[in-house]
Amino acid sequence: MVTRTVVDLRSDTVTKPSEAMRAVMATAEVEDEVLGFDPTTHLLESEMAKVTGKEAALFVPSGTMGNLISIMVHCEIRGSEIILGHDSHIHVYENGGISTIGGVHPRTIKNNPDGTMDLRAIEAAIRQPADVVYYPTTRLICLENTHANCGGRCISVEYTDKVGELAKKHGLKLHIDGARIFNASVAMGIPVHRLVESADSVSICLSKGLGAPVGSIIVGSESFIAKARRLRKTLGGGMRQVGVLTAAAYVALRDNVSKLEDDHRKAKILADGLSQIKQLSVDTTSVESNMVFFDIIGSSAISPERLCEVLEKHGVLAMPASSTSVRLVLHYQISETDVQYALTCIKQAVHQISNGVMPKQDA
Amino acid sequence: MVTRTVVDLRSDTVTKPSEAMRAVMATAEVEDEVLGFDPTTHLLESEMAKVTGKEAALFVPSGTMGNLISIMVHCEIRGSEIILGHDSHIHVYENGGISTIGGVHPRTIKNNPDGTMDLRAIEAAIRQPADVVYYPTTRLICLENTHANCGGRCISVEYTDKVGELAKKHGLKLHIDGARIFNASVAMGIPVHRLVESADSVSICLSKGLGAPVGSIIVGSESFIAKARRLRKTLGGGMRQVGVLTAAAYVALRDNVSKLEDDHRKAKILADGLSQIKQLSVDTTSVESNMVFFDIIGSSAISPERLCEVLEKHGVLAMPASSTSVRLVLHYQISETDVQYALTCIKQAVHQISNGVMPKQDA
Amino acid sequence: MVTRTVVDLRSDTVTKPSEAMRAVMATAEVEDEVLGFDPTTHLLESEMAKVTGKEAALFVPSGTMGNLISIMVHCEIRGSEIILGHDSHIHVYENGGISTIGGVHPRTIKNNPDGTMDLRAIEAAIRQPADVVYYPTTRLICLENTHANCGGRCISVEYTDKVGELAKKHGLKLHIDGARIFNASVAMGIPVHRLVESADSVSICLSKGLGAPVGSIIVGSESFIAKARRLRKTLGGGMRQVGVLTAAAYVALRDNVSKLEDDHRKAKILADGLSQIKQLSVDTTSVESNMVFFDIIGSSAISPERLCEVLEKHGVLAMPASSTSVRLVLHYQISETDVQYALTCIKQAVHQISNGVMPKQDA
Amino acid sequence: MVTRTVVDLRSDTVTKPSEAMRAVMATAEVEDEVLGFDPTTHLLESEMAKVTGKEAALFVPSGTMGNLISIMVHCEIRGSEIILGHDSHIHVYENGGISTIGGVHPRTIKNNPDGTMDLRAIEAAIRQPADVVYYPTTRLICLENTHANCGGRCISVEYTDKVGELAKKHGLKLHIDGARIFNASVAMGIPVHRLVESADSVSICLSKGLGAPVGSIIVGSESFIAKARRLRKTLGGGMRQVGVLTAAAYVALRDNVSKLEDDHRKAKILADGLSQIKQLSVDTTSVESNMVFFDIIGSSAISPERLCEVLEKHGVLAMPASSTSVRLVLHYQISETDVQYALTCIKQAVHQISNGVMPKQDA
Repeated sequence: MVTRTVVDLRSDTVTKPSEAMRAVMATAEVEDEVLGFDPTTHLLESEMAKVTGKEAALFVPSGTMGNLISIMVHCEIRGSEIILGHDSHIHVYENGGISTIGGVHPRTIKNNPDGTMDLRAIEAAIRQPADVVYYPTTRLICLENTHANCGGRCISVEYTDKVGELAKKHGLKLHIDGARIFNASVAMGIPVHRLVESADSVSICLSKGLGAPVGSIIVGSESFIAKARRLRKTLGGGMRQVGVLTAAAYVALRDNVSKLEDDHRKAKILADGLSQIKQLSVDTTSVESNMVFFDIIGSSAISPERLCEVLEKHGVLAMPASSTSVRLVLHYQISETDVQYALTCIKQAVHQISNGVMPKQDA
Repeated sequence: MVTRTVVDLRSDTVTKPSEAMRAVMATAEVEDEVLGFDPTTHLLESEMAKVTGKEAALFVPSGTMGNLISIMVHCEIRGSEIILGHDSHIHVYENGGISTIGGVHPRTIKNNPDGTMDLRAIEAAIRQPADVVYYPTTRLICLENTHANCGGRCISVEYTDKVGELAKKHGLKLHIDGARIFNASVAMGIPVHRLVESADSVSICLSKGLGAPVGSIIVGSESFIAKARRLRKTLGGGMRQVGVLTAAAYVALRDNVSKLEDDHRKAKILADGLSQIKQLSVDTTSVESNMVFFDIIGSSAISPERLCEVLEKHGVLAMPASSTSVRLVLHYQISETDVQYALTCIKQAVHQISNGVMPKQDA
Repeated sequence: MVTRTVVDLRSDTVTKPSEAMRAVMATAEVEDEVLGFDPTTHLLESEMAKVTGKEAALFVPSGTMGNLISIMVHCEIRGSEIILGHDSHIHVYENGGISTIGGVHPRTIKNNPDGTMDLRAIEAAIRQPADVVYYPTTRLICLENTHANCGGRCISVEYTDKVGELAKKHGLKLHIDGARIFNASVAMGIPVHRLVESADSVSICLSKGLGAPVGSIIVGSESFIAKARRLRKTLGGGMRQVGVLTAAAYVALRDNVSKLEDDHRKAKILADGLSQIKQLSVDTTSVESNMVFFDIIGSSAISPERLCEVLEKHGVLAMPASSTSVRLVLHYQISETDVQYALTCIKQAVHQISNGVMPKQDA
Repeated sequence: MVTRTVVDLRSDTVTKPSEAMRAVMATAEVEDEVLGFDPTTHLLESEMAKVTGKEAALFVPSGTMGNLISIMVHCEIRGSEIILGHDSHIHVYENGGISTIGGVHPRTIKNNPDGTMDLRAIEAAIRQPADVVYYPTTRLICLENTHANCGGRCISVEYTDKVGELAKKHGLKLHIDGARIFNASVAMGIPVHRLVESADSVSICLSKGLGAPVGSIIVGSESFIAKARRLRKTLGGGMRQVGVLTAAAYVALRDNVSKLEDDHRKAKILADGLSQIKQLSVDTTSVESNMVFFDIIGSSAISPERLCEVLEKHGVLAMPASSTSVRLVLHYQISETDVQYALTCIKQAVHQISNGVMPKQDA
């Protein structure tokens, strides 16, 4: 392949480990963590528990496993139902694992454009009375912060607390898919522990904006984490000398949280630039973190797939988000120069395709 | 209890077996059907296959099992997702069994007031491309006809065929929860076999409007029914001398289909009567089969629960359908006199509660 | 088919409902039991609770569902393991439903020829310590009484109590698959409630030796039955005017327990007769209830399948139990004359096949 | 803690990454492997496919996930049963995940002391005919090579082929839990690809004797691996820049296979030494790979737990294997001097405990 990738905007998961991460991976003290003795992992878990204000933490190979384990622990009793957004990552992008693996029934509420769900709709979806013979038992509400499919929008602490109160009132648990909770924290200027104060568990990704090569963390009470640890083993997520990964994740946490603000600034620059391109539509006011979604308007000749193909030839990688829109994600290995280059390429590509300069199928 | 129940409008499941049913139960030829030899059951199954235009049929203890088995057979491969209405009986009233027992992930589409779902919304919900690593595999679309939570509305053959085409186009199956498909057939004047022509399977209740004491039938291809038979055994729905039940169900099918039209007529009378009561709101044009839903308007003093309690004292049984509405269901053991009596009681009860004649809590 | 079935020894499930059962089915008072109001069913459940000395009872369509529900309730928390006999009905003949539907992991112990399992083997199979990260959690021990695959042997109250003590010591529950517990009770002269005193739940079949057309009962504590009722609905085992079945089951319980002793006597006569046939081997001392297993010895020319085929031509129905043995089951609709006729036919068939009088494949 | 660990014989999972592994982790080229682009991982997978003679390979976080995915892919259709050894790692040490997560029903066959299962017993356990309404469908046989709980015994290629033939004859698949298949290969002098020729899938651990920090590989056909990849994502085993792990695993494969022979030699030395201690019993002829099990005989005063506690004080780590035996596992980070030291400590500890020199509970 001759394409030289220059600017990868597909996701913030594509970051490469930094030099500092590589260095600690090469030196980290490790033990067999399946036996429970890896000191480097324990350090990371302890730090994440502190940062989130929860009793305990557990490292898992992915955010998908983090969410799956969290939901399965809260819904460990057969016959459980959870309430979550119809456009949440858990519902849309995790293989339906909560049902196909976990046997949990999802009840979806329409996500508002800002990632929230109507509070009355949530309450109306709770099964009451709880012992009706033909109802599953509602046990959990899930939020997502920032909300990826809603453009990386940040969920406020006030809203989160209200959902937490609702959960408590009905004896339910609250789980936050906080894959990008640090983005939300930085964007809103509110510490993570405050953002998740009302939650019983949070799943946090270390390999997205924070740039660790692999891994997520789930946090919650001691008893929640004890059950999660066992379930991690069941699912096959227990890893031996995993300190080589958690050492890098620790560096990610230490070095890269402060860089997220810059990602958000670059996202705004990108959004502003896109809004200047007449065939595209961007709601710049909704760009709250490191994601930019734009719609292709007017000419139906430009499909997102086609646009992404053309961009790839220029080394700009992006992902179609729907039949009319494209998603771009910023991270700390994208420079402002990269953003400008991407903007130039997108403008050019849109122009070329619209004007038929570039044939629909390349030879 | 001194209450003398007079008019039970809670559901069409409350019918008592007729004399004719009782008679055949007492004389039906029976064999061990778990071993596969019960002639009376085979007769019913054969008749139902004919009526629905499908290759084969299977008797099951309930509509819930009929739907559960059908979905589990179509989704026998792990990692399956189905598309169904957000207000469908399967999603709302069957314990989430498709997930908690069947490990199937539901993707819900908003039901329109007439029980249909937007065709484009259905198509958009189909996972494409099918091999994306983080998508479950869409395998089934489910319709419900008549649609209970949408007021017993009938789903047209044109709509059903369109959904069937959509399913075919994408390699999916179509299941119809036809608990009350005979009501739909009678109301629209279209034979059942035509209504379900596009469906790969149908679950049909014999103990609702048709009045059999127990049981539902599922129909489909030979291979579908062979798998369903085995799954019925797994779930514990295989019954021994079940001919005593299927004999009664056969009578229900023979004697009671023709009575459904009268149920629909009585439903309209009831709806018209209710529409005369000023504290109530009824959309009489939406009464298409044997169900009537009315909203209590104006005074928040009348809760559906309270109204049903008061009615019960007069021997009229009804069920709250939501926080503002009540559901009434007609069946052949409700006479026109019963309907008039119910109307009188409802009018009186609404009046009494509104005027505080009747205290909120009885002594 | 011209074959006139005379003596059906395949199973005690083949009994036809008696006149008395038919009569009550035609007259029983019934209500909608899914709504929870069927008086006839409540009467049967209440009677069965009394007979077994348990707080509550629930009617289910089959023994398979009875066992499945019981195990799923005791193992309602994900990650459960149960201990049961390698040759138990649950393990061998119920589709593996406890795993494929219930997500429960079975740990099998070798059944002794008398149906028991070694107590030390049971204790060794209990996962200890319970919180080891790679162990499922042992939650239940299952016994079967009488034990079908062990020849209908009766499990003593002393043994049952010892298993119960073991269960209690380790915080486990004890479930008895008592499909034929009345046979055990009658054979050993010990009341059912004493036989199951140590058990937390029992599943009892009414459509085997007791002759009801359909159904089993599970018994246990109030809270166990409340959970079981809900799970019955999930599985689709909730039935409407089920009083038509439970009325017959009540008659079965009232009329037929006393007839079991006679079944056992006939089984001994049959076993004695078989032991006179030189190509057959029967351990007559192991015939403790209504089952007789015999081995075909000596000539490999006689396969159980072949023998059963030949017998069927004479109207004697039997079932191969293994590659060398045949199972015969007595019930109250088999007379002593039938037993003598069966013996004559078996003797003749063995003789004919052995001597090649009857060709291996009939024209 | 003041204990200075010297010789860790608990498992071959405890090895620390070598300098060479650390070096490649610091330099490996990595991409987002959840998106499917990590070149380092592809290199390892390609190499493992070659080594095992299979079409394709997939890296997974653990052997538990490797087995779980393999079994779930072969048993993707609901209602599946597998045949496996009663003392296999999958059955005993993987949380029962195949049932509690995978919904697969296990049928266990007694393992012979050499890790095999009787071929006739396997065949007898296959459900036949396959369509009996109360049987799950047998879909898979599992072997384990080397067999951990049977002392690390090697399963011959002849035996494996016979099981493979049996599987083929009945339309079943064969999976090998080859966590330590390289040990078997080295011990028997037979290449891995030949050892697994009859298998449809193999799970191979890279973090046991081969010393990689994390990970296992599963191999099989292209279509098997495609399904496995998707299921890995569902379970949450998809990892982003996983090249940092697979680079180390590649080194493990390259550098450490040749060292296994030495591990086996050291195991024999250890076994011979233990056999000289009169309170211990070792079957030295059964030491075929890197494991040594010894029984504590004679005095019941010495429990395995107690012995391991005392050894720990001397820096020798070992694991009780049962109520009377202890397991020791060799790996390349255990030197011959370590073996001699361990022998001295064990001898001394046994002596001390036996003579009461060391109190049962230390102050």
